[in-house]
Amino acid sequence: MTRGLFITLEGPDGAGKTTILNRLAERFQNEGMKVLHTREPGGIEIAEQIRKVILDKDNTAMDSRTEALLYAAARRQHLVEKVQPALEEGYVVLCDRFVDSSLAYQGYARKLGIDEVYSINQFAIADMMPNLTLYFDIDPKVGLERINRSNEREVNRLDLEELQFHEDVREGYHILLQKFPHRIKQINAEQELEHVYEQAYKEVEALIRSQA
Amino acid sequence: MTRGLFITLEGPDGAGKTTILNRLAERFQNEGMKVLHTREPGGIEIAEQIRKVILDKDNTAMDSRTEALLYAAARRQHLVEKVQPALEEGYVVLCDRFVDSSLAYQGYARKLGIDEVYSINQFAIADMMPNLTLYFDIDPKVGLERINRSNEREVNRLDLEELQFHEDVREGYHILLQKFPHRIKQINAEQELEHVYEQAYKEVEALIRSQA
Repeated sequence: MTRGLFITLEGPDGAGKTTILNRLAERFQNEGMKVLHTREPGGIEIAEQIRKVILDKDNTAMDSRTEALLYAAARRQHLVEKVQPALEEGYVVLCDRFVDSSLAYQGYARKLGIDEVYSINQFAIADMMPNLTLYFDIDPKVGLERINRSNEREVNRLDLEELQFHEDVREGYHILLQKFPHRIKQINAEQELEHVYEQAYKEVEALIRSQA
Repeated sequence: MTRGLFITLEGPDGAGKTTILNRLAERFQNEGMKVLHTREPGGIEIAEQIRKVILDKDNTAMDSRTEALLYAAARRQHLVEKVQPALEEGYVVLCDRFVDSSLAYQGYARKLGIDEVYSINQFAIADMMPNLTLYFDIDPKVGLERINRSNEREVNRLDLEELQFHEDVREGYHILLQKFPHRIKQINAEQELEHVYEQAYKEVEALIRSQA
């Protein structure tokens, strides 16, 4: 393998994404692969500066299109400085959230338009689309129950108010599954974590074997 | 006039753009119009923060696509916070440089592609394209001679090295003239300043009359 593989993980918080990402990275490393595990802005100075502008609580006047452009800008810089060099050195790059998050959250749920948000992200990504995207699908209600069961905090009014938003996000991801059927693989994240993990591992392994 | 007019001025530095913009603003104000004279980032806090990231001298790793996305983001915020409210109050908005600068400098001269840079700017601008754009056309050599004649400083090696770049920028603007023949009016900026000014005034006045 002279060039690496670029794999992104998508889905709502609470679907087990982060746990699975950690386990995948560990397993592939143990199998002797070079693995980069990252998420935007990933310690890249320019991307961190941009993220700081996005998250500044005083920036209440931030327009949603400005925000989408800033996310795309931070994405570009993280990609160029961190992901691309790793791919050139043959790494398997596992990235927690990428372009599909912008499409599902901002494009669909925040109603900016999937195609419009995709156009600025195509500019940002240029020819560096992921080889594979794992989408962890879960009913937002089940996700909320999990947070309620496992976390320190109780589900609050805000969580419930946001349920509709998270249902919209899920609908957005389902549209993306139809738009990019070859790149995005859906994994049922309502199963036991062990099953979810095994399915994720199999998808990545199949990709690696196909490239060998 | 219940809604204002959005007019942008384009062309290289040294074409007399700023002087003419000041005179136009003064004249229309004297004629009783509400005039907003601005340029990005225009004191808009979020746009200023973004510009700071672009101009930070330590950000040498800045990718040209990241930069183009940041310019588009700053443009969006300046537009939403400053230009749009003024237009809604019926102002004539005169803006020194706008989307065409990104298209000519980054899209064409820096070779990112006019259509690609236009796509992210269309997202940034949405439905707020200028009603009229005045493009001040001048041979870069003549512009350099003017700098040499009028300014405190002499033309240096860098200016000459950059001549090809400025010729590319001019070529870029000429392509935009063909792409947007109804919006962009070319003005020969090699004439005496008084003639250039009068022609610019006539173009804006014609627009105002057509909207009355």
